[in-house]
Amino acid sequence: MMKQKELKIAVIGGGSSYTPELVEGLIKRFSELPVKQLYLADIEAGREKLEIVGALARRMAEKAGVPMEIKLTLDRREAIEGADFVATQMRVGLLEARSRDERIPARYGLIGQETTGAGGFAKALRTVPVILDICRDIRELAPDAFMLNFTNPAGIVTEAVLKYGGGVKTIGLCNLPIGIRMQVAELYGVDDSLVDIETVGINHLNWTTRVHLDGVDITTDFLEKAAGSSGLTMKNIPDLDWDAGLLKALKALPCAYHRYYYMRDEMLSEQLEKLHTVGTRADVVKQVEEELFELYKDPDLNVKPSQLEQRGGAYYSEVAVRLMTSIYTNKKDIQTVNVRNNGIISFLPDEVSIEVNAVIDADGAHPLQLTRTPGAHIRGMLQVVKAYEELTVEAAVHGDYDTALQALTIHPLVGTAAAAKAILDDILTENRSYLPQFFQ
Amino acid sequence: MMKQKELKIAVIGGGSSYTPELVEGLIKRFSELPVKQLYLADIEAGREKLEIVGALARRMAEKAGVPMEIKLTLDRREAIEGADFVATQMRVGLLEARSRDERIPARYGLIGQETTGAGGFAKALRTVPVILDICRDIRELAPDAFMLNFTNPAGIVTEAVLKYGGGVKTIGLCNLPIGIRMQVAELYGVDDSLVDIETVGINHLNWTTRVHLDGVDITTDFLEKAAGSSGLTMKNIPDLDWDAGLLKALKALPCAYHRYYYMRDEMLSEQLEKLHTVGTRADVVKQVEEELFELYKDPDLNVKPSQLEQRGGAYYSEVAVRLMTSIYTNKKDIQTVNVRNNGIISFLPDEVSIEVNAVIDADGAHPLQLTRTPGAHIRGMLQVVKAYEELTVEAAVHGDYDTALQALTIHPLVGTAAAAKAILDDILTENRSYLPQFFQ
Amino acid sequence: MMKQKELKIAVIGGGSSYTPELVEGLIKRFSELPVKQLYLADIEAGREKLEIVGALARRMAEKAGVPMEIKLTLDRREAIEGADFVATQMRVGLLEARSRDERIPARYGLIGQETTGAGGFAKALRTVPVILDICRDIRELAPDAFMLNFTNPAGIVTEAVLKYGGGVKTIGLCNLPIGIRMQVAELYGVDDSLVDIETVGINHLNWTTRVHLDGVDITTDFLEKAAGSSGLTMKNIPDLDWDAGLLKALKALPCAYHRYYYMRDEMLSEQLEKLHTVGTRADVVKQVEEELFELYKDPDLNVKPSQLEQRGGAYYSEVAVRLMTSIYTNKKDIQTVNVRNNGIISFLPDEVSIEVNAVIDADGAHPLQLTRTPGAHIRGMLQVVKAYEELTVEAAVHGDYDTALQALTIHPLVGTAAAAKAILDDILTENRSYLPQFFQ
Amino acid sequence: MMKQKELKIAVIGGGSSYTPELVEGLIKRFSELPVKQLYLADIEAGREKLEIVGALARRMAEKAGVPMEIKLTLDRREAIEGADFVATQMRVGLLEARSRDERIPARYGLIGQETTGAGGFAKALRTVPVILDICRDIRELAPDAFMLNFTNPAGIVTEAVLKYGGGVKTIGLCNLPIGIRMQVAELYGVDDSLVDIETVGINHLNWTTRVHLDGVDITTDFLEKAAGSSGLTMKNIPDLDWDAGLLKALKALPCAYHRYYYMRDEMLSEQLEKLHTVGTRADVVKQVEEELFELYKDPDLNVKPSQLEQRGGAYYSEVAVRLMTSIYTNKKDIQTVNVRNNGIISFLPDEVSIEVNAVIDADGAHPLQLTRTPGAHIRGMLQVVKAYEELTVEAAVHGDYDTALQALTIHPLVGTAAAAKAILDDILTENRSYLPQFFQ
Repeated sequence: MMKQKELKIAVIGGGSSYTPELVEGLIKRFSELPVKQLYLADIEAGREKLEIVGALARRMAEKAGVPMEIKLTLDRREAIEGADFVATQMRVGLLEARSRDERIPARYGLIGQETTGAGGFAKALRTVPVILDICRDIRELAPDAFMLNFTNPAGIVTEAVLKYGGGVKTIGLCNLPIGIRMQVAELYGVDDSLVDIETVGINHLNWTTRVHLDGVDITTDFLEKAAGSSGLTMKNIPDLDWDAGLLKALKALPCAYHRYYYMRDEMLSEQLEKLHTVGTRADVVKQVEEELFELYKDPDLNVKPSQLEQRGGAYYSEVAVRLMTSIYTNKKDIQTVNVRNNGIISFLPDEVSIEVNAVIDADGAHPLQLTRTPGAHIRGMLQVVKAYEELTVEAAVHGDYDTALQALTIHPLVGTAAAAKAILDDILTENRSYLPQFFQ
Repeated sequence: MMKQKELKIAVIGGGSSYTPELVEGLIKRFSELPVKQLYLADIEAGREKLEIVGALARRMAEKAGVPMEIKLTLDRREAIEGADFVATQMRVGLLEARSRDERIPARYGLIGQETTGAGGFAKALRTVPVILDICRDIRELAPDAFMLNFTNPAGIVTEAVLKYGGGVKTIGLCNLPIGIRMQVAELYGVDDSLVDIETVGINHLNWTTRVHLDGVDITTDFLEKAAGSSGLTMKNIPDLDWDAGLLKALKALPCAYHRYYYMRDEMLSEQLEKLHTVGTRADVVKQVEEELFELYKDPDLNVKPSQLEQRGGAYYSEVAVRLMTSIYTNKKDIQTVNVRNNGIISFLPDEVSIEVNAVIDADGAHPLQLTRTPGAHIRGMLQVVKAYEELTVEAAVHGDYDTALQALTIHPLVGTAAAAKAILDDILTENRSYLPQFFQ
Repeated sequence: MMKQKELKIAVIGGGSSYTPELVEGLIKRFSELPVKQLYLADIEAGREKLEIVGALARRMAEKAGVPMEIKLTLDRREAIEGADFVATQMRVGLLEARSRDERIPARYGLIGQETTGAGGFAKALRTVPVILDICRDIRELAPDAFMLNFTNPAGIVTEAVLKYGGGVKTIGLCNLPIGIRMQVAELYGVDDSLVDIETVGINHLNWTTRVHLDGVDITTDFLEKAAGSSGLTMKNIPDLDWDAGLLKALKALPCAYHRYYYMRDEMLSEQLEKLHTVGTRADVVKQVEEELFELYKDPDLNVKPSQLEQRGGAYYSEVAVRLMTSIYTNKKDIQTVNVRNNGIISFLPDEVSIEVNAVIDADGAHPLQLTRTPGAHIRGMLQVVKAYEELTVEAAVHGDYDTALQALTIHPLVGTAAAAKAILDDILTENRSYLPQFFQ
Repeated sequence: MMKQKELKIAVIGGGSSYTPELVEGLIKRFSELPVKQLYLADIEAGREKLEIVGALARRMAEKAGVPMEIKLTLDRREAIEGADFVATQMRVGLLEARSRDERIPARYGLIGQETTGAGGFAKALRTVPVILDICRDIRELAPDAFMLNFTNPAGIVTEAVLKYGGGVKTIGLCNLPIGIRMQVAELYGVDDSLVDIETVGINHLNWTTRVHLDGVDITTDFLEKAAGSSGLTMKNIPDLDWDAGLLKALKALPCAYHRYYYMRDEMLSEQLEKLHTVGTRADVVKQVEEELFELYKDPDLNVKPSQLEQRGGAYYSEVAVRLMTSIYTNKKDIQTVNVRNNGIISFLPDEVSIEVNAVIDADGAHPLQLTRTPGAHIRGMLQVVKAYEELTVEAAVHGDYDTALQALTIHPLVGTAAAAKAILDDILTENRSYLPQFFQ
């Protein structure tokens, strides 16, 4: 039984500025999830950050008096070998690539965003091949491990593993659903353990279709309260208010990323304006990260600095550690994760990834039947964006130009063949070194 | 929130010999499920039994020191009004009707059984109209109540409520899945809380496709142990041993009722032989019940008599009380119940009842995605028997002869048009007073 | 058998400028389709046009020596009573309404088009209630009649009849697919009887996925020829050239209306420019129609004037008359029509309308299994636009604001909640007298 | 274009007694289907029959004055090379094997039949590997050829090619549907060209759900006439009368082979009785064939002898030649054939074979949407028998004992695990030399 094992966790992209968040979570839950070895793996280009973050992590563990060994490595395979969990949080091409992802669509008057639209498409093309390489290592070195995927665009990346990962067990994670739950709790002034939400959709495009407070359905009341509320958002997304009429019509709360669709024009204006002042979101994050790493270097720092919370990954650690704990302890609680659809959302193909509530046990994530069948509006949006995602997975895996062009052309935030072609050509040119699959 | 309510439970068919089992369960869980009022309702013909059982129930509650009021009534509507749970366990036509159900098919050389095949078909025709009457009362008098249906054939009866109950919330129950879990626990010498099984199928025709012990998959080992084991059975079904080759081929454990299919010839022989010696199973049960009621009359008896366990309903109370508790406390544990399919078993229609694992919370039962997709063998059997069940629901609701004939003709234990017609005609003739829908 | 009947055809909107086209077709096929009575029905506001067109029709029949009685009526029920075919070609609100439909979206910088996007949405809201009224008449007065629906948006209108027409037999028609066939024939210099095309999609959003010339697949060659070809278009749609790279990626020819999606920006520019010079397309058509009616008045005119072909309805008559002929003669040839999906396009709901190849016999239209399963690109586009259409049918039938808002918001040519709301409010205000379902 | 080609047909199993039937058909249609070369291929064991039949065929062609070369060969590859059509009508194991197939189930009190039940199962195990070998030859030597499969069990064999034939184009054929059409024509005294029937199901298990006479639905009248009619049967199946009540309930005419299900007991009695008198059907056929070959030897015989019609393959030639003609001439008429389901029968998997109406053109067979959705009775029977067929295909291809056991156990004419195991073991033992896939 897993519980008897000495736990080993491998974090790919371990030099990330988010790592102290994760380490804090592991420390807090150590009694339930007694991690023996935490491997932080990164690439040569990230060596310095890895060492800074690794040293901080060790100070944090020591301060907490927790016997968790923290190992730093540039050899991914060493980290993966025999691991129980492999968490992926790397960023192929670093923030420079993200900045390009945000700028290219803007050139053509379109939204450029890290995960949504043409920006996320570019990120997917770069990331999927690396993720599938990691899968090969896992199959060889840790075939029973769960790959917990945080790398964005998490839905596409998880789907690539489900389809092409050769059987590697994977679960995709996002901090957005837990954020909604926490905000409901705050809105009603209750403990979040009393709140249940039903999420329907895919990563970064899902709706909260039902809200329960201590077993009682408060969805209608909640939607009235949520209209105009700017609290229900993410750090990295402008928090424009939701229109009450829209929420009433939808009978559901869109997620933060829905603003790029429902409020496309305002979002675009804001983005273009920022581009001319502070630069892309990547540029902003880059500066935040530099400041964070300066803090991390302080040899007296031995807890997660509060500034990290400004970075945007609220509850990231909570989500990751809760998931590992429920698998490890066979807990059977309900969490919102990215998994294979297999009939849960009846109008999407079986083999795609979806983001829904699932029971988590030693065997992984087991999605629950939906209690609210989404209507045609939600259905249509999910279907077209999922079709884009499926094409993107194929394009990323096979390096096929025509498939890539089909993908970008139907994305609702691109929409025309001419823009799709121009953007695709720019992406391929500017990411050439990261996209060998397209240049063989 | 439900937890604040004063709980009222209505038991339709409250005069059943099983009632002390249920009462014992309610007493044991009183701290979690503080039932204020337990209404036992029955019909005039059952008045005497109701009074005997009711008196015993009161002595049991008093002995246990539990402040649960036990009310007896011949007015079903009084019992239902404002109830939180309405449990149905009645037997339309009493054991006399069951005896006929078992004899009629035997006349034509076919298996006659309470729930499976032509016997269960007759029981369904009698029961469905009464159940739908109860639904009308619930909609009027207790619209928020859960109808917990134990009345056999539970799958068909539950499906009738799902399709024609006008929105009454219902969950169908059976003690068979929990029985398997308990037997696994016994076989491995562990506490049953460490055992998880995955059930796939419909009521009285389901397979255990996965067995976990403390999070570890032991299915293959279990199937080897289960072959030849006569322990894995039900009190009311001859416990013929499973063939090791069959279990290996199926990669799953059939349920006890599968013996009527996989071992049809032996089961039929045994049944015909018994018919000539001790009579039908109904005849045997009748005598057991008479003995039980003699015991129940004893004014000094204030606990459930151990002889009740010989009756066949092991874990019946456990199943019922656990379900009510999880709904009442919004517990979110996993139980095996009969619910609307809605895509969980992809090859059965959405609107039929299936018996699978589900999370139970204040909102009811939420089935889990299957982890093992059944192969063509299980699929084919389920599809043909479910088609029979769907036709039976239609025939029972609309009183349509042609539909009834279609139903019986495709049941694998009937199979020919001539036998179906002869049996149907006998059923209609001998149950005329209970089948007004066919004689208008 | 139908063939023995004396044929009666009712044309609702009989005063249309297109009617001479239809009459010409009926005359040409009279030997196969011996129409006894042709009823042209219109409303009071169209009396003058009806009389002009009716007189021309009579002169045409007389000139051709064909014993087809042409009756004019303002009483729709008189026309429908006992009819074999009821053809609908009316325009609720006349060209004035169409002009508004084209102007409203333009106000918000969006495409305004008769059938596609927000313009078609407004037309659907006005038309569906009238069509369902006609269905009521058909059910009462000509229950065996086929309703042949040419009224745009034909896909939505046909779907409304399929869902809410109370069983009226209906087939939706469009001249676009036959146009492609004709253009293939022209391109290859062959008779069109040698050309077969496979159409996949819905009305005004379908792809030609396969082209056969005398039984040989020439799809790839055809797509190469079609790129850049401006011939493959419709009179009422700017004939921008298709990009060769797009056709290669799609492996299919988009239909003319696809330009509003794939070339949205160019189409919008062109539209806005025209709006400031010649006005809306409706304004242009209005002038063309006035000129046509001037011609029609000429008592010496007894054939269809060649100027009618400039109007945009090429092959309209061919499509209508071929369909009636194949039904009447039980011909079993293949035509491209709008029918209930029922599994033909596996990723669309069963009950929606689709536009595909079907065998036409006395029983109606029987769609053929697709030989090319569309990929994710075509799938995604069809799914989101069909979801819009389903919502539009519901909004049009029930007059529900929230559903209407959901519909417009997901249309790819609208896309944002704010634009959807503004346009919807304008549509309701400016069409109030035609939309009683929204103002009760 | 195919029409320009010099046609070559290969007949695998060309020495069959049916061949003169086929040759007669080819002669009759020579003007439409000008076959240049007819290759009759057989194995060494069939050399004598091949020579007899080949000589007769040549005399027939000569007599008819038709320039069709008839070539005889023991080299299958020579026959296949460059062929346009490859017709398979061989019998692996000859009539001796069929006789065993009929005897083995009878040993256990079950029906033994050439295509239905355990007998057909054995035939499938022997035939599928040979058919897939032929597919390999076709892929190599005649990749554009259509394989027309008459070899029984035609549904299973066709499905094996669809799933494992590596893309070989195949259509499965049966003379049963055309037989029903002819019998309807006879019953109503009309030419069969006026009759249309709708067939729903799979090979040897399909229902006629709609009958049209000159475009008018006469289904109800026809079913009344068909009850009791022993005419609607096949030469090789006892022609027990249909019960009027059953046909009324089904609202469809079962096919001749349905008697093995609906009248299982009578069919079994008849079979067991015959077994003790004249032997198996194979034994009877063997004698008929010997007599036929004696006739064929007559050097003066130069037409198909009328005695052949007693053999049971009425319309066999008609079916084969009509199909080839429609493909060759791109005719687009409707024929009933075995093809990939792909959504036509919504409740069966996409990739299985079904027997339904299809338009035949140069591209092959294109099934039509059903006009009558079958109810749960037909659905359930089709699903369980198709599940048996799917398992049989897998067992035949992979030689897997467990899959074979699962297949036989769920066949409605076997039903119990013990009988399935006993029969399977007998089949494997007695067909060992034909089943290398099971003995590796």
